[in-house]
Amino acid sequence: MPRTSSLFSPPNLITSSNSLGCLLRRFVPLSRVSYSNTSTAHFSSSRGLLRQTRTQFRPAPPSTRSSRTYITEATRAHQARKMAPQLDGYFQKVDALSDAFIERLREAVAIPSISSEAARRPDVVRMGHWLADQLTKLGASAELRELGKQEGTDLDLPPVVLARYGNDKNKRTILVYGHYDVQPAEKSDGWDTEPFDLIVKEDGRMCGRGSTDDKGPVLGWLNAIEAHKAAGIEFPVNLLMCFEGMEEYGSDGLDDLINAEGKKYFADADAVCISDNYWLGTEKPCLTYGLRGCNYYSIEVSGPGADLHSGVFGGTAQEPMTDLVRVMASLVDTDGKILIPGIVEQVAPITADEDGLYDNIAFTMETLHDSLGSKTTIFEDKKSTLMARWRNPSLSLHGIEGAFSGAGAKTVIPAKVTGKFSIRTVPNMEIDKTNALVCRYVEDVFKKFGSKNTLKVWPQHTGNWWVASPNHWNFAAAAKATERVWGVKPDFTREGGSIPVTLTFEQATGKNVLLLPMGSSTDGAHSINEKLDKRNYIEGIKLLGAYLHYVAEEPIN
Amino acid sequence: MPRTSSLFSPPNLITSSNSLGCLLRRFVPLSRVSYSNTSTAHFSSSRGLLRQTRTQFRPAPPSTRSSRTYITEATRAHQARKMAPQLDGYFQKVDALSDAFIERLREAVAIPSISSEAARRPDVVRMGHWLADQLTKLGASAELRELGKQEGTDLDLPPVVLARYGNDKNKRTILVYGHYDVQPAEKSDGWDTEPFDLIVKEDGRMCGRGSTDDKGPVLGWLNAIEAHKAAGIEFPVNLLMCFEGMEEYGSDGLDDLINAEGKKYFADADAVCISDNYWLGTEKPCLTYGLRGCNYYSIEVSGPGADLHSGVFGGTAQEPMTDLVRVMASLVDTDGKILIPGIVEQVAPITADEDGLYDNIAFTMETLHDSLGSKTTIFEDKKSTLMARWRNPSLSLHGIEGAFSGAGAKTVIPAKVTGKFSIRTVPNMEIDKTNALVCRYVEDVFKKFGSKNTLKVWPQHTGNWWVASPNHWNFAAAAKATERVWGVKPDFTREGGSIPVTLTFEQATGKNVLLLPMGSSTDGAHSINEKLDKRNYIEGIKLLGAYLHYVAEEPIN
Repeated sequence: MPRTSSLFSPPNLITSSNSLGCLLRRFVPLSRVSYSNTSTAHFSSSRGLLRQTRTQFRPAPPSTRSSRTYITEATRAHQARKMAPQLDGYFQKVDALSDAFIERLREAVAIPSISSEAARRPDVVRMGHWLADQLTKLGASAELRELGKQEGTDLDLPPVVLARYGNDKNKRTILVYGHYDVQPAEKSDGWDTEPFDLIVKEDGRMCGRGSTDDKGPVLGWLNAIEAHKAAGIEFPVNLLMCFEGMEEYGSDGLDDLINAEGKKYFADADAVCISDNYWLGTEKPCLTYGLRGCNYYSIEVSGPGADLHSGVFGGTAQEPMTDLVRVMASLVDTDGKILIPGIVEQVAPITADEDGLYDNIAFTMETLHDSLGSKTTIFEDKKSTLMARWRNPSLSLHGIEGAFSGAGAKTVIPAKVTGKFSIRTVPNMEIDKTNALVCRYVEDVFKKFGSKNTLKVWPQHTGNWWVASPNHWNFAAAAKATERVWGVKPDFTREGGSIPVTLTFEQATGKNVLLLPMGSSTDGAHSINEKLDKRNYIEGIKLLGAYLHYVAEEPIN
Repeated sequence: MPRTSSLFSPPNLITSSNSLGCLLRRFVPLSRVSYSNTSTAHFSSSRGLLRQTRTQFRPAPPSTRSSRTYITEATRAHQARKMAPQLDGYFQKVDALSDAFIERLREAVAIPSISSEAARRPDVVRMGHWLADQLTKLGASAELRELGKQEGTDLDLPPVVLARYGNDKNKRTILVYGHYDVQPAEKSDGWDTEPFDLIVKEDGRMCGRGSTDDKGPVLGWLNAIEAHKAAGIEFPVNLLMCFEGMEEYGSDGLDDLINAEGKKYFADADAVCISDNYWLGTEKPCLTYGLRGCNYYSIEVSGPGADLHSGVFGGTAQEPMTDLVRVMASLVDTDGKILIPGIVEQVAPITADEDGLYDNIAFTMETLHDSLGSKTTIFEDKKSTLMARWRNPSLSLHGIEGAFSGAGAKTVIPAKVTGKFSIRTVPNMEIDKTNALVCRYVEDVFKKFGSKNTLKVWPQHTGNWWVASPNHWNFAAAAKATERVWGVKPDFTREGGSIPVTLTFEQATGKNVLLLPMGSSTDGAHSINEKLDKRNYIEGIKLLGAYLHYVAEEPIN
């Protein structure tokens, strides 16, 4: 998942109320919830996938979460139910091969494939070759697709690994996406251990850069292939794979490739599955069917020809910084209310069905306070908070370019300052309409100042929101696999952030896209001490394989 | 002069209306203008120094301003008037030695005595030793006073050069201050020539780092001594010198030394003269008798435990940046009006006498527009502008620490942000009262937001305003010397900026302090292509010497 900076609280596997014991879960049908988006499937099925049901969910107590006992006997019994009989042998083989799978992850983590650092580009390329080599050894046909030069540089972009495993016309074909590049990491950033040495802790945490984002999930697909082969179980689908090496630095060149291959290399795909996000908490699995979009804006205010001495010019010149700060203060209030007219008016009204969804999601304000590191939330209740994150827009002020930003004191009057803010967008907000409203409002506010300075406002980049249909067989298969592996029906969640490639795949293939997370909310994807819990890795491998089996069984709806 | 960042317009010696030809100058008495400050002399003399008078001021046209003809015949005739007869020989000798004086400046500029760069510390120390050596060769007794370690480092501070030339009980003693360190400079910053090679241009510009700030003025005193010796003219006063090597980096350790030596090394001083500021424009000399103070404030707003992802937390967390920007927007408006109650109420009311002063100052809005690089001024007229710069407080927003400040787009929600702003203070503002008003206002504004975030506000540093009595014999001598050298009575000016050492000298010695600038407003002290006009250097050497002669003649008032 891109752009998740250090937002994670210290790993603590037992923080949610789920850990207190049994939890009654109640789901209500999602049918008749309708959004309009040019390229998005609708919630239109009258057969609600999310049935009202009761499920026991009992995570292991922490003291017993050793390398072999992180999953409860009740869950094992659930896994053994004969709903997709051939899975028993697969699960056993995954358990048997778990040390080898951890070794494979260790080998991958050891390659410092940092896409944002030019000096590490050879390591990123090496990682792509390693991955293609592993796939080839497993019997997949893999190719390294070159993307040309990185924009504005002489650097070759790392290749995209395109691979196919199986080509049986009688099977469904699933396209999976992941990325093999990672965020930067230095031990001196504050890591407890060497970031590129995978360290498996007593409590099951496997620490290392890329462990959860996204080498663990990518290798999950390879491990699933290997376990099937080792168990002598037929692979249930054809698997198309698209693994890129620039995700952490803007996925340069990827959209063009996906669009070009949508009806070529990816033409067979019946559905898409991306494993590059996280559970909402630490104990309850989820399937993700929606993401917010992001429109990013710049406001530039300029006047003087160069930076000024505030002693000489203070009181005699109209200062760009004063104007900019006044404009920025007019955008949003302390409680997150967007003050630009016409923004919230675009938001899809809530239906009675959706209204009933939130109370049942495994999420507590305590979890939020933990990840926030404080209690400075806008809302006091879970429902308002989830709605604010998933289905309402938000506006954040990120900073100012050109002003003094260091420690200490500097008395400069900056000549040109650029304020940065973004709006997270939701159904049914329209990009062009939103841009026009934002720009007109900012210009109107500035005009009232009567300033001689010059203001410009423009969208720096935009990305649409995405909402898929969780009633699709793709989600149904993933839900059954989750219940089989984890002993619990997953939460159906949306996320507040953006994974732009999701929408690209949907638009290029015209197929349903599912986000199927492996890691949990405390993994710290972009932080120091990034980890993937061994439990989530091994059960996650089972989950990916089981998902493919249920995909094969699922009727087309 | 410290902290004058790149605020200068390109050198243009003929920009003010003065260059249009003859200009009638009218001064009115400053008597009965009264300010209260604990340590400052008052404008109390009934004999106004600044008499109503008419003086022709005719600068040379640019085409004739070669190395030998930059001063007009009318001015030379004026210089030759027999008011202080021994000056004739001195002036001739300064002209005769001008090439040697430029060589001395070249030698000084060649030592890259950059105080802010640890690696250059040996060069700063070398510069101090070079200066002491030059003084010793001229017959002064010089000593290098060590100041210990630079705060927070293992670096030795460069020594202060303390020197005495002459010890005649029958003469007045003048204490002069200057600094031998310079701002950083690299050719790659955009210099037209090597910054540490003094280049004398056709038009008389002598470009090089430190040429005007402050090596030229410092060497002015040494050159004055040499020219007197060479001409066989008795030096008119005892000269005490204090030249420091850390002025451009906070004058670490200097205040303690000045305070300790106020009644010891500096005990004989009858008055203080500092040549480390600039003319208001490019053609009219000035004497400076006032500076604004500067109170620098920080406002810290914090909430979350770490920076947050705006996708995940946008709309659910109260964002410190939102609160900070809203507080900062409440401090000042586009026209520079300070919105904090109780600040402007402390400003000394304008008297009828002061009211008449401004119109006669050689300053035009065109000059201001040139130096500003735009027409984005708050006022349209000279008088309001000068009053805003000199006698009214101003509030500037400098920047925000902790927020995103780079180019491009980053979607972070900063966890802790610190806004920086300063207030330039004037008579009769009190530091403690102002601090209390600022902090209470900021806290009150924040309280109204109902935010759960935490706000702290505190003064980072404060420095008092300074206003001296221009009726003192120290100023009278400088005014006569200016008229003798430049053929025009100087403007009596204040400055909007701060030179904290001025107040320190005044308080430590209890004597009148005069700011006697050598360079002009286009010198670009901290900018690329810093220069001192040859005209200002050579005539400036005459001015410093003449000032000392008039000091010797001046009755004590």
